Amino acid sequence: MNLKQHIELMLPAIEKELQDQVARLNTSHTRHFHEMLTYHMGWTGEGAGREAAGKRIRPLIVLLATASLGVDWRLSLPAAAAVELVHNFSLVHDDVQDNSEKRRGRPTVWTKWGVPMAINVGDAMFVISYQAVMDLSRTHPAESVVKTASILHEACLNLTRGQYLDMSYEERNDLGLEDYWPMVGGKTSALLSACTHIGALLGNAGEEEQEAYRQFGYHLGLAFQVQDDILGIWGDEALTGKSTASDLVEGKNSLPVLYALGRQGKFAERWKQGPITPAEVKTVAALLEEEGGRAYAEEISEKETQVALKYLGEVNVQGAAGESMLELANMLLKRNQ
Amino acid sequence: MNLKQHIELMLPAIEKELQDQVARLNTSHTRHFHEMLTYHMGWTGEGAGREAAGKRIRPLIVLLATASLGVDWRLSLPAAAAVELVHNFSLVHDDVQDNSEKRRGRPTVWTKWGVPMAINVGDAMFVISYQAVMDLSRTHPAESVVKTASILHEACLNLTRGQYLDMSYEERNDLGLEDYWPMVGGKTSALLSACTHIGALLGNAGEEEQEAYRQFGYHLGLAFQVQDDILGIWGDEALTGKSTASDLVEGKNSLPVLYALGRQGKFAERWKQGPITPAEVKTVAALLEEEGGRAYAEEISEKETQVALKYLGEVNVQGAAGESMLELANMLLKRNQ
Repeated sequence: MNLKQHIELMLPAIEKELQDQVARLNTSHTRHFHEMLTYHMGWTGEGAGREAAGKRIRPLIVLLATASLGVDWRLSLPAAAAVELVHNFSLVHDDVQDNSEKRRGRPTVWTKWGVPMAINVGDAMFVISYQAVMDLSRTHPAESVVKTASILHEACLNLTRGQYLDMSYEERNDLGLEDYWPMVGGKTSALLSACTHIGALLGNAGEEEQEAYRQFGYHLGLAFQVQDDILGIWGDEALTGKSTASDLVEGKNSLPVLYALGRQGKFAERWKQGPITPAEVKTVAALLEEEGGRAYAEEISEKETQVALKYLGEVNVQGAAGESMLELANMLLKRNQ
Repeated sequence: MNLKQHIELMLPAIEKELQDQVARLNTSHTRHFHEMLTYHMGWTGEGAGREAAGKRIRPLIVLLATASLGVDWRLSLPAAAAVELVHNFSLVHDDVQDNSEKRRGRPTVWTKWGVPMAINVGDAMFVISYQAVMDLSRTHPAESVVKTASILHEACLNLTRGQYLDMSYEERNDLGLEDYWPMVGGKTSALLSACTHIGALLGNAGEEEQEAYRQFGYHLGLAFQVQDDILGIWGDEALTGKSTASDLVEGKNSLPVLYALGRQGKFAERWKQGPITPAEVKTVAALLEEEGGRAYAEEISEKETQVALKYLGEVNVQGAAGESMLELANMLLKRNQ
């Protein structure tokens, strides 16, 4: 069984578990509230469908991690739903915080129902994610439930730390390379490392093995984020010049940018003068590449990928699920195997 | 030992536990983030002190419930901190949702640091409250930790339900008495019933006794909310006429108002015409009283109080802590014993 087949097998089970969890709000007085959540999850409303739902990468990682240890992945479904709900809670609140009007091609929750409702939708998803974890008690000892919840809590607190740093950077003019890692460690790696860690825990991995899975997820998250940073500046869409999708136009404190700011060259000079316009994107991206921002980020991404794969190599992943997890990692990093 | 002495004994322990929990954010990159939480909790910033911190009623109820069963209340401190953090998370988000600039006489978190930061502050408090629950594992079996967390989750989901209803009512023009209870059950009673329930659970109460404690908290919450509704219209401050503190001016869907809307008399007519001005408060309050809104609410408050006390009478509360819990209930209901 390859990754595609694993996805075809697991995805319907993930969606079912997610829908069952979110159905907690589907009661007589709160049907419309429930709809706000099902809309965001991509199941209802205009434009509903697989595209609107997103790829469900995180729950897939949880399930593949459990399966790679030879344990039935179905037992981890509530945990898989939990991490996806945490991810989506953070998206709903992020969209308010970033003032983003679109998400996966559709109007965001706050655009449709206002900021106060969107805050409440995120809060409800957050609670439901923990309720999903507690559902593990049906099949797992209470100690494992507490451990799983604790791992997820720590990841969530790190999400808020990363979010705080990201927002606080907007007001700073003295950023350098050293400011990148604490932010990205929280925003991207915290939840991905929780996915591999929880998947391994529920797959009955020992302490050392759990730690290797956790590290795999953590460095996978870092490598993925750096890749994303590179594509956000030099990817096809970012470079059209017309697109405001470029991270340069959005003023994002990505790794190439923070590297170049530390160099204090022409790029840094231009960056500090204020927002990059769409018309400037090509020139500024070229300047950033010239000053080494792209090469540095590629080097780091490659390094983090190697570290991630080293940790995955340390654990005794079993059979097809282990192969698929590696395939998924490579897909995330847009690499050929 | 009376209530005052219990408070003097327990309050410093509650504050210490809360501070230790919130200190999770007191790390090198997030000190300023940590400060936002300590400011809201009333410990730091301009106007810090006991007034700014609030009364810590909810954690006191948890501890008194445990103590009333003859168990050391110190063992319940992490749970007590958890409910207070949940309460405060909801206040931080409420203030954003209601656009409230002041809380306990001080600028709200969003007023000081902006809406995006305030959302994140609430999210962090929410996570920390669950982390506090997990700390119970140091002294309690994992099964009790899972049960405590599940009770708190259910209360939190009900908080979001109540919040949703409250916000959705703002756009409705057809409200009646039957719309009051689902909203208030979520907004006020959910967390209070979790307090007495969790306190009893950690006090090793049996299932039936836990249920009685839970019901006591639930009806105490309803009675308290109705009392609060009455004071919000006919309390001293609300009636000065100058004050915009009147719930009538704020357009709050309180019990007296919803009762009178169902009567479809002169009050209902005026209410539907738009906001009550401060100058009108006295006349409209008198009209509402004439049409029976006050008497109805007083009757309901008395009834809910009796139900609450009946449930408290069912359990075998022990010694001074039991007395103090009754005293606290009476204090909340502004009654003489």
